[in-house]
Amino acid sequence: MTEPTLYPESGFLRLRIDLAYDGTNFSGWGKQPDRRTVQEEVEKALTTATQSKIETIVAGRTDAGVHAIGQVIHVDVPDTLNLDDLSYKLNRMLDTDVRVMKVAVVNGPFNARFSALRRHYTYKILDGNQTISPLNRLDVASWYRVLDVDLMNQASALMLGSHDFAAYCKFREGSTTVRNLQRFEWSRDSAGFLIGDVVADSFCYSMVRNLVGAVVCVADGRFGPEWIEQTLANKVRISDSLVFPACGLTLRQVDYPTDDQLLEQAKVMIGKRDNGSH
Amino acid sequence: MTEPTLYPESGFLRLRIDLAYDGTNFSGWGKQPDRRTVQEEVEKALTTATQSKIETIVAGRTDAGVHAIGQVIHVDVPDTLNLDDLSYKLNRMLDTDVRVMKVAVVNGPFNARFSALRRHYTYKILDGNQTISPLNRLDVASWYRVLDVDLMNQASALMLGSHDFAAYCKFREGSTTVRNLQRFEWSRDSAGFLIGDVVADSFCYSMVRNLVGAVVCVADGRFGPEWIEQTLANKVRISDSLVFPACGLTLRQVDYPTDDQLLEQAKVMIGKRDNGSH
Repeated sequence: MTEPTLYPESGFLRLRIDLAYDGTNFSGWGKQPDRRTVQEEVEKALTTATQSKIETIVAGRTDAGVHAIGQVIHVDVPDTLNLDDLSYKLNRMLDTDVRVMKVAVVNGPFNARFSALRRHYTYKILDGNQTISPLNRLDVASWYRVLDVDLMNQASALMLGSHDFAAYCKFREGSTTVRNLQRFEWSRDSAGFLIGDVVADSFCYSMVRNLVGAVVCVADGRFGPEWIEQTLANKVRISDSLVFPACGLTLRQVDYPTDDQLLEQAKVMIGKRDNGSH
Repeated sequence: MTEPTLYPESGFLRLRIDLAYDGTNFSGWGKQPDRRTVQEEVEKALTTATQSKIETIVAGRTDAGVHAIGQVIHVDVPDTLNLDDLSYKLNRMLDTDVRVMKVAVVNGPFNARFSALRRHYTYKILDGNQTISPLNRLDVASWYRVLDVDLMNQASALMLGSHDFAAYCKFREGSTTVRNLQRFEWSRDSAGFLIGDVVADSFCYSMVRNLVGAVVCVADGRFGPEWIEQTLANKVRISDSLVFPACGLTLRQVDYPTDDQLLEQAKVMIGKRDNGSH
């Protein structure tokens, strides 16, 4: 990976683009040969619209089948580009399962991935072996037993804070699995769906789906709550059979610092880089 | 059409089946050659599951692209059939855009179409030229101007009651266009969608989408409210360009009499039939 930039090169503008997508028919965000990915579709549309080769930097690299309603990317486009109807043009080119929700010019320092403070995900479950009504089928996972919201919340609370989440992540060479889980709460909405609200500074590969699987294990009475803490401490990867499906997961929101805080963050990052090269 | 029956033939059980479907990829309910229709898919699954030729009678013959969360059909199946896991078996065979929500044996007189007292539809609009988020895209129509809920309600109220809705229906040989519109109200939900609640004894072909188009015309200021009443009185078909798209329309609920009322209704129907044959 190239070094993260906070400003575009001279002659370019940096755009923040907010995206939403139904991940059902995508092999995730990140480009892969011979697969339909959100990144490739969006970069293709941007390249056509701007008539220059565009590369995206994304806040949350969602896995295959995972959805987004508040994904954020940045791109650098030639500063001669007419931005008036860019969003409209892009949506005309894109399939209806991915939409540009907003395009904004960034003036200060900003990097969609490295400036992000935290990511918010939603996990949606229909429990008790209920049939999912087709109009609701895109973003829900089903579970055969009835799940108790209080038990789910008790188990989830045990994971809060900064931990090495190695037991709850697919291993990837050279990347840390230490994360700060800031919120992990469940509630039942008016339509009877169980809604999980999961917030962390960032997430490892398949981490939310692992966390949900572990919590459901406890809510189902398969393991006691102490199993959550032991697994976290032992850092031994839980069984793949406990991982919940991608279809229930949606990237809801990415938080960024205010403009002033972004300027402070930029000074620190540039300071670190200077130190590193000495 | 054969005469409506209220009871199955001897050796058969009558089942009431509640269905939900995403109409996007269906050419409507009713069977048509070389088209994918809900009726054909459901009858195929029922015929396989029961190993006998099954024909369905439906409460609301939805048009191409129209959805349902509370569609009701009845079918007569051999009384030797094991009903225990019929709903599960059917859903295993059906594609995920149509689901059997409930199967129940009917003991008294019942006909999904002729016993129905009224049909409830929902029409969902995202106005003000907003982009529809892909996870919400299945059952929403978009409109470029902002629509005023109060104006929509004022215009809708003018259509309430029993009228000849010829101006608001596609003409079909040999069928009446007199209907009793019992409710036509708009509200804005917490997510900002404009929700139309439309209830009548029954609806003519494309009637809800015509009514919505007419009301939006008035809310947009294109015609005054008096135009609604004039059109209703003149019975001159409104322009097809005013008809709203099928994708925003969902059959939400079908109301039936109580068991006692069904028995009374049956006596009247059978009485009428006897008179007719004299």
